[in-house]
Amino acid sequence: MTSDQRPAKRGPYAKSAERRRSIIEAATEVFGSRGYKGGSLQDVADRIGLSQTGLLHYFPSKRDLLVAVLRHRDEITDTGPAESSGRDFAAILVDQAAFNESVPGLIELYTVLCGESVTDDYPARDYFVKRFDRVRREYAEELRTLAAAGRLRPGVDPARAAASIIALWDGIQLQWLLDNSIDMAACLRDYLDGIILPAPAKES
Amino acid sequence: MTSDQRPAKRGPYAKSAERRRSIIEAATEVFGSRGYKGGSLQDVADRIGLSQTGLLHYFPSKRDLLVAVLRHRDEITDTGPAESSGRDFAAILVDQAAFNESVPGLIELYTVLCGESVTDDYPARDYFVKRFDRVRREYAEELRTLAAAGRLRPGVDPARAAASIIALWDGIQLQWLLDNSIDMAACLRDYLDGIILPAPAKES
Repeated sequence: MTSDQRPAKRGPYAKSAERRRSIIEAATEVFGSRGYKGGSLQDVADRIGLSQTGLLHYFPSKRDLLVAVLRHRDEITDTGPAESSGRDFAAILVDQAAFNESVPGLIELYTVLCGESVTDDYPARDYFVKRFDRVRREYAEELRTLAAAGRLRPGVDPARAAASIIALWDGIQLQWLLDNSIDMAACLRDYLDGIILPAPAKES
Repeated sequence: MTSDQRPAKRGPYAKSAERRRSIIEAATEVFGSRGYKGGSLQDVADRIGLSQTGLLHYFPSKRDLLVAVLRHRDEITDTGPAESSGRDFAAILVDQAAFNESVPGLIELYTVLCGESVTDDYPARDYFVKRFDRVRREYAEELRTLAAAGRLRPGVDPARAAASIIALWDGIQLQWLLDNSIDMAACLRDYLDGIILPAPAKES
């Protein structure tokens, strides 16, 4: 806790928030190691010594819990334009890829749930469709800004490059989960170095 | 059947091979739409009017069936050095990516099973670890050949670029499954154009 934050609230509300958080963390492990379809609410409840009824008090359905888990992951691993203002787009992405190596459980969760998302009647399919669409638009916008500053390599299509950055990142995470010797951040940096031109030296 | 092939064998052997093939095709649909963990042998058997016991006569376990399904997919969609001799590496990959749009069921199958492969105790994890390792080595070798001919952009690392090609391809297939407007072949071509230099014009 930093000094400008208020002290944590005590009482029922704080306890409830803490319980929700522990359920989400348990579900992150269960869905990451067994998939959403393979993991059960009972597995999640068992992990923190709750009854399934107790768990359903916090999350009325498995689907609600899945959505909460995905949002929790987003808070930790997503990089958006707000965070990038004033910093170099490529540097932020490469830092994020390096950071992701420190949260393998979340990477596993994302990879497993992404793969499941293309199956029939998957409850979070819409989440992934919208997430990809949003991140593609954000990245394309960043690349157009770079193009306007003369920093996008001529011939690079911002929309396709945005989709390709995300694709390369998702795919390299999968390979890394299966073989930790893969250097995720370096692969991403290589790609970005190939499409983004160096910033001109600042005039003093 | 082309004219240089022998007529199909008749009798029990041909019938058995045909039955195996129909089981594999049914399993491809079931695992692709529900995942390996979510799809059951009964689902596969039902789809072709077999009993589960009848199916187990051909594939003694669900795991055996999974391996057969993955090999079947490889036969249709994998591009190896053998096929590439004498043809341009980049052109082969882009053609393959374009071809893959015609077999969405196999792409879905691959994407779902790849995602599942990082979960605990997944029977085909080893298949994916070895497959990625083999394809990375094959692609890196192709890129080293191009480098030796002066056709790899200076500074490109063949091993990382090989991993990145596969990653981009896997990731863009996932996005395409969720949004068919994504141009998979164009994204792959953009990347390859960025790392491979054009062949010099042939002297006449």
